[in-house]
Amino acid sequence: MGYFDAASAAPLHPVARQALLASLDEGWADPARLYREGRRARMLLDAAREAAAEAVGCRPDELTFTSSGTRAVHDGIAGALAGRRRTGRHLIVSAVEHSSVLHAADVHRAGGGEVTEVPVDRTGAVGASAYAAALRPDTALACLQSANHEVGTEQPVAEVAGHCRAAGVPLLVDAAQSLGRHPVPDGWSLLAASAHKWGGPPGVGLLVVRKGVRFAPQGPVDERESGRAAGFENIPAVVAAAASLRAVQAEAAQEAARLRELTDRIRTRVPRLVPDVEVVGDPERRLPGIVTFSCLYVDGETVLHELDRAGFSVSSGSSCTSSTLTPSHVLKAMGVLSEGNVRVSLPPGTSEEDVERFLSVLPGVVAGVREKLGAPPGGAVRPDGGDDALVVDALGRRCPVPVIELAKVIGDVPVGGTVRVLSDDEAARLDIPAWCEMRGQEYVGEEPAERGSAHVVRRLV
Amino acid sequence: MGYFDAASAAPLHPVARQALLASLDEGWADPARLYREGRRARMLLDAAREAAAEAVGCRPDELTFTSSGTRAVHDGIAGALAGRRRTGRHLIVSAVEHSSVLHAADVHRAGGGEVTEVPVDRTGAVGASAYAAALRPDTALACLQSANHEVGTEQPVAEVAGHCRAAGVPLLVDAAQSLGRHPVPDGWSLLAASAHKWGGPPGVGLLVVRKGVRFAPQGPVDERESGRAAGFENIPAVVAAAASLRAVQAEAAQEAARLRELTDRIRTRVPRLVPDVEVVGDPERRLPGIVTFSCLYVDGETVLHELDRAGFSVSSGSSCTSSTLTPSHVLKAMGVLSEGNVRVSLPPGTSEEDVERFLSVLPGVVAGVREKLGAPPGGAVRPDGGDDALVVDALGRRCPVPVIELAKVIGDVPVGGTVRVLSDDEAARLDIPAWCEMRGQEYVGEEPAERGSAHVVRRLV
Repeated sequence: MGYFDAASAAPLHPVARQALLASLDEGWADPARLYREGRRARMLLDAAREAAAEAVGCRPDELTFTSSGTRAVHDGIAGALAGRRRTGRHLIVSAVEHSSVLHAADVHRAGGGEVTEVPVDRTGAVGASAYAAALRPDTALACLQSANHEVGTEQPVAEVAGHCRAAGVPLLVDAAQSLGRHPVPDGWSLLAASAHKWGGPPGVGLLVVRKGVRFAPQGPVDERESGRAAGFENIPAVVAAAASLRAVQAEAAQEAARLRELTDRIRTRVPRLVPDVEVVGDPERRLPGIVTFSCLYVDGETVLHELDRAGFSVSSGSSCTSSTLTPSHVLKAMGVLSEGNVRVSLPPGTSEEDVERFLSVLPGVVAGVREKLGAPPGGAVRPDGGDDALVVDALGRRCPVPVIELAKVIGDVPVGGTVRVLSDDEAARLDIPAWCEMRGQEYVGEEPAERGSAHVVRRLV
Repeated sequence: MGYFDAASAAPLHPVARQALLASLDEGWADPARLYREGRRARMLLDAAREAAAEAVGCRPDELTFTSSGTRAVHDGIAGALAGRRRTGRHLIVSAVEHSSVLHAADVHRAGGGEVTEVPVDRTGAVGASAYAAALRPDTALACLQSANHEVGTEQPVAEVAGHCRAAGVPLLVDAAQSLGRHPVPDGWSLLAASAHKWGGPPGVGLLVVRKGVRFAPQGPVDERESGRAAGFENIPAVVAAAASLRAVQAEAAQEAARLRELTDRIRTRVPRLVPDVEVVGDPERRLPGIVTFSCLYVDGETVLHELDRAGFSVSSGSSCTSSTLTPSHVLKAMGVLSEGNVRVSLPPGTSEEDVERFLSVLPGVVAGVREKLGAPPGGAVRPDGGDDALVVDALGRRCPVPVIELAKVIGDVPVGGTVRVLSDDEAARLDIPAWCEMRGQEYVGEEPAERGSAHVVRRLV
C-alpha cells in the first residue's frame, strides 16, 4: 500500500463503514414523514447533525449537510453574496483557493460582481495585511482556505478573520483539507468541508453558516436542510460522515505528529536524494500530511506513471498531466517550478516503511525519466562560452522540454550573455523563471515572438 | 411490515446493498486520477453509467449522475432553458408536477421568464391537445412527469412528446415515479429520475440529455460528470443505484401485475368499507402501486397517526399535516377533496396479507377520528328544514372542521335554500366544493366576508 493521495480522497474509515451499514437499514425513509420509519430516519439525521456540530464547534442549526464539499462551497458563496447584496458585490478570494471557490467567483464576476484575488508569497500563503487591504466598504464576502490543498501551506485564518470582523465582512473558510485532522482557527462566519477527505463516504459536504450571518439560499426553493441543500437527505452517508469525523478527530493530534515527522523526512531527504528538486510550500506552517516538490527536466505525468508502477499513488499539479495543459493555478500563483511536480499526501496510518520505500524508489524513477528525455546531468553546466545571440527553438514542445533545452545550451552562453527560448507552452512561462531562480541565472523577461514567446535568460554563473 | 409509502422512498434493494458494500472498498478514490485506485474507481463509474444507460435506453455519454432526483430536475431545467435562450424564455409545465419542477419554474419566472401551467382534469391528467396548445414559437422547454407522484395517474407522455417534437421543443420528463418499475414512453429529450425511489441508495439522481439537445449547464464550472454535475463523484452509491435499477427492472412486469391487483382491491373496497370516501386518480391509466383516497370529516394527520399506531406507514396530501397548512397542489389542481387524504404506495414485494390487514383496520381508524371530531354519521342528512339564511361560523377552525360543520347543518336547510360557511381555512376552498360534488349539493361560490370567505352552498337533495 503506497496510497499517498489523501488530499484527494481517503479510503472509508472503519467507523464510517460500520455507521453506514447500520443506517442503510434504519435511515432510508423520508425524515419529513411522521410514521415510524420516517421518525427513525429523522432521529439518525438529528444525531448526526449534533455530532458533526460538536466536532466543528457550532450549533446544530448552523450546520447543513450538502451533497459534496464542492456544493457546500458553491452554495455557501452564492448564499452569502446574495444575503449581503445590499452591502455590495465585492468578493475577496485568495489566488490559491480550491477551484470550486474560484469557479464560484467566476460566476459572480460573470454576473456583474467584482472579485479581488489576493496574491500569495512563494510559500503559498497570503499576507494577512495584504488580505486586509483588499477589504472595502462594498465587500460582501471574503473567502480563505484553512490550508492549501496542493502544497499544504496554512493560511493566516485567525488574523484574516480578525480583519474581516473589524470590517464587518463575513469570512468563508474552506476547511476541506483540515476539518477533523488539523485545528481550524476560529473567527470564521461560514465554513465548508468535505466528508470523503476525512474518511467519510463521498456524497457528503458540510456548510456551516453562523447565526447572524445574512444568508439567502439561491436556486429553486426546497424545504430540506433548512432550505440550504435541495434534494432528499442522504442519511446513511451523513451518519457515516459524522461518525468518521468524530473518530478521526479523536486520533488527530497524535496522528498529526506522526505524519509531520514522515513528511519532514521527505522534505529533507528528497533534495539530497534527487538533484534539481525544489520542495515547495511553507516548511513550518503547514498541514502535517502534505509535502510537495517539483523536479526539473521531467514531466509530471510520466513520473506519476512510473511511481504508480512502483506502487505509489500521488498526484501532480504539473501541466503535463492528461487532464490539463496548464500548470496548477496554485503553483503559478506561488511562482514556483511546476514541471515534474509531485504532491505526496499521507493518509492517517501511513507506515514509516512505506515512506522509506518511497524515498528509495523516487531517485531511480526521476533519473529514469530524465534519461529518456535526454535531460542534462544534474547540476552540471558546460563551462565553455558561445554565441551571445543564442536561440533555442522549443516551439510545439511541451514541458519539460523547453527547460531541458535551455539547460542544455546555457553552458554555451558566455557569462553575462543571453539566450532566447522560443516556446508556445503555457508551462514555460512559469518554469523558465523558476529554473533561473533555482540555478542562480537571471530571467530577463518574456517577449512576443512570431509564434509563442521568447523567454530571455541571462547567464550569471 | 406495513410500509406503504414507496412513492416517497423505498428500502435499499438487496442487490443495491451488495453493490454498495463491494464498491466502498473499490470505488472511494478520485476517478480523475491516473493511479491504480483512481483507475479502479473510473472503471466502476464507467460500468455503472453503461448499465444505467442500458436500463434507461440511452447512450452512456447522454447520462449524468447527479446527487439527487431534485438536483437532476433543477439542473436539467436550468441547463435546457439556458441552452435555448435564443429561442425564447417560455417554459411549459403541468400543474401537477413534483415541487422540484414547480420550484425550478418559479426561479425561471423570477428571472423574467414566462411559465405556462397546463391544467389537469379531475383524474390528474393533462390533455395532450391542451398541452400542445400551450406550445409557442418562443417555448424553450416543456416539462411533463411520467406519472403523478400523489395519485399515480399516468400522463400522456407519448402524445405530448409528439406535439413537442413537431414544434421543435425539447420535452423534459420527470420519470421519478416510473423509471425501473413502469415503462416510460419514448420521445423525451431530457429525463430526470431518483435512485432511492427504485431501491437504490439516496444521494443519486439521473439526468439524461439526448444528443442534439441544446444544453448549457448553469452554476460554477466543474469538470466532473461532463460538467453537468458538480462535486466529487459518489461512486459506491452510483454503482448501487445502477445495480438496483437493473434488478428492479428485471422484476418489474411481474411485480407490476401483482401490485396492480392489490391497489385495485383498495380502490374497490375502501369506498364500500368507509362511508364518505372519494378515491382519486385515474382508475386505469395509472401506476400499479399507488392508490389515493380522501375521507370526509377527518384530518389527514390524525389518520396518518392512527394508521401508524396500527402499523401502517402512508402519506397524505391533506393540509392538516404538521409540515404545511395548505392542501397539496396536486389535489388542488385536480379539484378533488383534500381532507382526510391518504396515499397508499406499495413497495415491491408487498404481501396480500398486509393489504388485507390495512383494509380491515382502516374503517375503524376513520370512524374513530370522525367520532372524536364530532362528524355527522356517514351519509345521513337531517330531514327537517330550517332557516334560508343559515350561517355557519367556522372562522379560525382548520380542516376538516368547516366541512363537518357544513354537513351538520345541511339538513336544517330547506331544499333549494342556501347556507353560508364562513371560513379562513385555505383547505375549505377546495374541500367544500368537493363535498358538494360528493353529496349532490350545489356549490354556488365563494364571496368575500369580513374575515375569510363565505362559501355559499345550495341544498339540492
